[in-house]
Amino acid sequence: MLLLVLSSTCSFAQEVTTGGLAPALINDQRYNRAIHIMAMLLIGFGFLMVFVRKYGRSALTATFLLVSASIPIYFYTKGIGIFGSASEEIEKLILAEFGAASLLIAAGAVLGRLKMPQYILLGLLFVPFYMFNEWVVLGGGLGLIPAGTVVDTGGSIVIHAFGAIFGLGVALTMTTKQEFEKTIESDATSDRYSMLGSMILWVFWPSFCAALVTPEQMPHTVVNVIVALCGSTLATYLFSVSLRKKISIADIANAALAGGVAIGSTCANASHTVAMIIGILAGGLSTFGFAVIQSKQQKWMKLIDTCGVTNLHGLPGLMGGLAALPIIHGLNIQSQLSGVGLTILIAIVAGIITGKILPIMGRRTEAYEDAEEFLDAE
Amino acid sequence: MLLLVLSSTCSFAQEVTTGGLAPALINDQRYNRAIHIMAMLLIGFGFLMVFVRKYGRSALTATFLLVSASIPIYFYTKGIGIFGSASEEIEKLILAEFGAASLLIAAGAVLGRLKMPQYILLGLLFVPFYMFNEWVVLGGGLGLIPAGTVVDTGGSIVIHAFGAIFGLGVALTMTTKQEFEKTIESDATSDRYSMLGSMILWVFWPSFCAALVTPEQMPHTVVNVIVALCGSTLATYLFSVSLRKKISIADIANAALAGGVAIGSTCANASHTVAMIIGILAGGLSTFGFAVIQSKQQKWMKLIDTCGVTNLHGLPGLMGGLAALPIIHGLNIQSQLSGVGLTILIAIVAGIITGKILPIMGRRTEAYEDAEEFLDAE
Amino acid sequence: MLLLVLSSTCSFAQEVTTGGLAPALINDQRYNRAIHIMAMLLIGFGFLMVFVRKYGRSALTATFLLVSASIPIYFYTKGIGIFGSASEEIEKLILAEFGAASLLIAAGAVLGRLKMPQYILLGLLFVPFYMFNEWVVLGGGLGLIPAGTVVDTGGSIVIHAFGAIFGLGVALTMTTKQEFEKTIESDATSDRYSMLGSMILWVFWPSFCAALVTPEQMPHTVVNVIVALCGSTLATYLFSVSLRKKISIADIANAALAGGVAIGSTCANASHTVAMIIGILAGGLSTFGFAVIQSKQQKWMKLIDTCGVTNLHGLPGLMGGLAALPIIHGLNIQSQLSGVGLTILIAIVAGIITGKILPIMGRRTEAYEDAEEFLDAE
Repeated sequence: MLLLVLSSTCSFAQEVTTGGLAPALINDQRYNRAIHIMAMLLIGFGFLMVFVRKYGRSALTATFLLVSASIPIYFYTKGIGIFGSASEEIEKLILAEFGAASLLIAAGAVLGRLKMPQYILLGLLFVPFYMFNEWVVLGGGLGLIPAGTVVDTGGSIVIHAFGAIFGLGVALTMTTKQEFEKTIESDATSDRYSMLGSMILWVFWPSFCAALVTPEQMPHTVVNVIVALCGSTLATYLFSVSLRKKISIADIANAALAGGVAIGSTCANASHTVAMIIGILAGGLSTFGFAVIQSKQQKWMKLIDTCGVTNLHGLPGLMGGLAALPIIHGLNIQSQLSGVGLTILIAIVAGIITGKILPIMGRRTEAYEDAEEFLDAE
Repeated sequence: MLLLVLSSTCSFAQEVTTGGLAPALINDQRYNRAIHIMAMLLIGFGFLMVFVRKYGRSALTATFLLVSASIPIYFYTKGIGIFGSASEEIEKLILAEFGAASLLIAAGAVLGRLKMPQYILLGLLFVPFYMFNEWVVLGGGLGLIPAGTVVDTGGSIVIHAFGAIFGLGVALTMTTKQEFEKTIESDATSDRYSMLGSMILWVFWPSFCAALVTPEQMPHTVVNVIVALCGSTLATYLFSVSLRKKISIADIANAALAGGVAIGSTCANASHTVAMIIGILAGGLSTFGFAVIQSKQQKWMKLIDTCGVTNLHGLPGLMGGLAALPIIHGLNIQSQLSGVGLTILIAIVAGIITGKILPIMGRRTEAYEDAEEFLDAE
Repeated sequence: MLLLVLSSTCSFAQEVTTGGLAPALINDQRYNRAIHIMAMLLIGFGFLMVFVRKYGRSALTATFLLVSASIPIYFYTKGIGIFGSASEEIEKLILAEFGAASLLIAAGAVLGRLKMPQYILLGLLFVPFYMFNEWVVLGGGLGLIPAGTVVDTGGSIVIHAFGAIFGLGVALTMTTKQEFEKTIESDATSDRYSMLGSMILWVFWPSFCAALVTPEQMPHTVVNVIVALCGSTLATYLFSVSLRKKISIADIANAALAGGVAIGSTCANASHTVAMIIGILAGGLSTFGFAVIQSKQQKWMKLIDTCGVTNLHGLPGLMGGLAALPIIHGLNIQSQLSGVGLTILIAIVAGIITGKILPIMGRRTEAYEDAEEFLDAE
């Protein structure tokens, strides 16, 4: 039984028994979640990023290109068995979407600093690194961590933390003194688009975390994700108004989602009460990050994290991965800690390498605006 | 057979046989509908309410807070068996979402008159009253109406009418002479956001009404909901242009949905032709409400119903509950009438009580604007 | 086996075996796709068309009316057995949605030239012609093409090409010299709404193409649709920037979807690599159409195609129908060519007839604006 629970959460649970249901039924159940995740990728992430001043067309087009480049690459690479294999098409599709989500998180850190073709190049470089980390941490790759001993059902570690830290690595290399002085401005009138993106992510998040769990685990998992999101949403409001006197709509649009990030690792295992607590803590941590840490981080790390992915995906992702330690009975603690540590290491190295390669296609110090690459832009 | 039909529509049909399918299959079918309903709650209701002038951030944040506060409360309360119980997690989740929908309707009546923490308090006060009414009308609570004898599959009575009348009760107590003179202004440029909210509600409405019906009833039910919505949409256009000379986009965004409200009670039972007729009548009634009744109601009842929930949810909801009388053979007429009557009574009393409690957290007579509670608001 | 493949793609595959699953399971699987398609119809098509200057309210209301008029008509007509029959309710609903999609494509060609009641009339006239063509090409109607020998699973021919050519027929008759001089202007600030519509269409397109395939065919089909869309999205970016120097956001919002149009006929049969190639070619063809052909077409054919449906649905739709010739082994080539030819013929004749009838309700040469039919419009 213990073995079953553990194996059911490994590598996003894809190797697990499917509860005696016919494959066609499992595929249909997963298919609906795959479409929900696709809505999160394009509309959710896309519109959440439409807050940079005069950069709305670029943000949406970049989202389109990042998704369109990364999904076929992941799908084909997995299909030929590099960095692990997957036999079912819908399962492979969902794994590819997970990779695209992590890529969009990474891109969020450098949004507004890349030209369109550089986003495509970013996707080409990111996917192999992401697949390598997924394989090492969840699939037993290189023999560093026994396969199936790291619990990360909804991807707090290998999707959210990896993407955020990779993005920081790129930003670290690419942020020069001039860029640091010319900050990315936000567009005060785009708040409703950002809230649309945020709400799409919130609504479909249960499908993201439960995409590959067994039919038996699904109900408990999705309720956990929803109460965690409720917790982070309420906490975000309370922390935003406490830390800033007035509410920041950017806090609401972003930190309200931190519960979904942090419950990822333990979503199939935590009790509902624990899920609510994780959500509240993640919402508080993320809001504190946006309100207090972000400005200090910029000075200390000498980098600009455009979308604040450190605060939405980085810190809550790491918190979620470590939350498994006290929550899951029978957890292989060494594996879990190694999984978190290796993810940090691989992400930062891969991000820095990518940040060295991207400038090959050109380098600019000022923030981009739609008008440079788009016709008829304001 | 008769018994089966009746029991299948009681208490939103949740006690009914599930057609011989395995529980995991029923849960998956309901899960997809639960996610559709979540999209209605956050994006549908949220963006439909983004029409109050300079109040877009507040409306969307209030939606987030109302949903995040009410769903866990309902879920936990039902879990410990107060006001009836439910054994399956996804079923409980859907029932909690129904409660959140009713709460959002109630909040629509006083939108723009509450501060953010008051929306949370409204949620805390609303949920127990809502659960009490649901239990009394559908679950046989207090022994007033035999359990399962009121037909309200899609919630015309206990969700829509209850929420609207509760909201009127709150507005009745909270509207003073000063507020009455300082009306809520609408924002002429937010029409496309309202239409987005409206379309999200329209698209996913079949999942709302069919959320808990049996697999055998589902196809007939969803087609009924869709033709009712088609009927109300066409009728709204015809009535809007007839009553006002030109079309009001607010009529289209709101009254087009009245078919979904009114078909709720009989969605599993009516024929498609009858469903279309109910939709047309509901669309006409609702548009007449917005175009003609609303201004008279404000003077007569001395209250402001910000979102016009009387016309979208109140009147069509009552119409839907009463439509069961001629439509459903073998209906317990006394029960159905008692269900409608008790809902009106409980909702108005509960609303008035809530309207007396809410001002504890402060009271203002002028309409709120984003700038008072949000940073950098226009 | 060959017979099975062919019959499985006929008449949108609805007569095919359902893989041994219980009807209730098939209905549920199809139901979720039916809701996805409804999101495409209202939100996808609706917001994609919100680019005409000062015509946003009209475009969204027209979408509502076209869908609300056409779905019940198709449903009832099919129910009484005219132009073929269908026994299952969800199947009939999906077929009705396919008809509504084709109608919205046709309406896109004359958007901004019709008053609201004329859109309803357009729907009333379109549906019988559409059903007639569907019956002749896929259902063996009139005995012209043996039933089930034309491969068009996702409707490249009978949905996309038919709708676009019908729309051109209407535009051809209705465009006079004066209209030709007073062009439809686009609204530069509506780009984010158009991208929202485009992304909704992109996300749910796999459900459109796989709506009626067997459970066994579903995984391969949906992955084909997704890689085709990825291919057309990347190709659109490359062609847009190559042909115009800067990217046109209208190209991105429209031509990125051409892969979904073109993969329609062969989505259940092509390999993933071939699907990607079809997507890339379709994206390139469509972008070339918008960037180069459209202005020439206007002069040559003396018509205005408001939404450019020729380039998004017409050319890629025909390309998709013909792509079956080299791709599908054992294809009845004569049938496939007859299907394409008859669709072109029926669509153009029906469109011209409709274009003669529509002016009965009034005729104007200037572009319409919201303010003429809507209250409080800008």
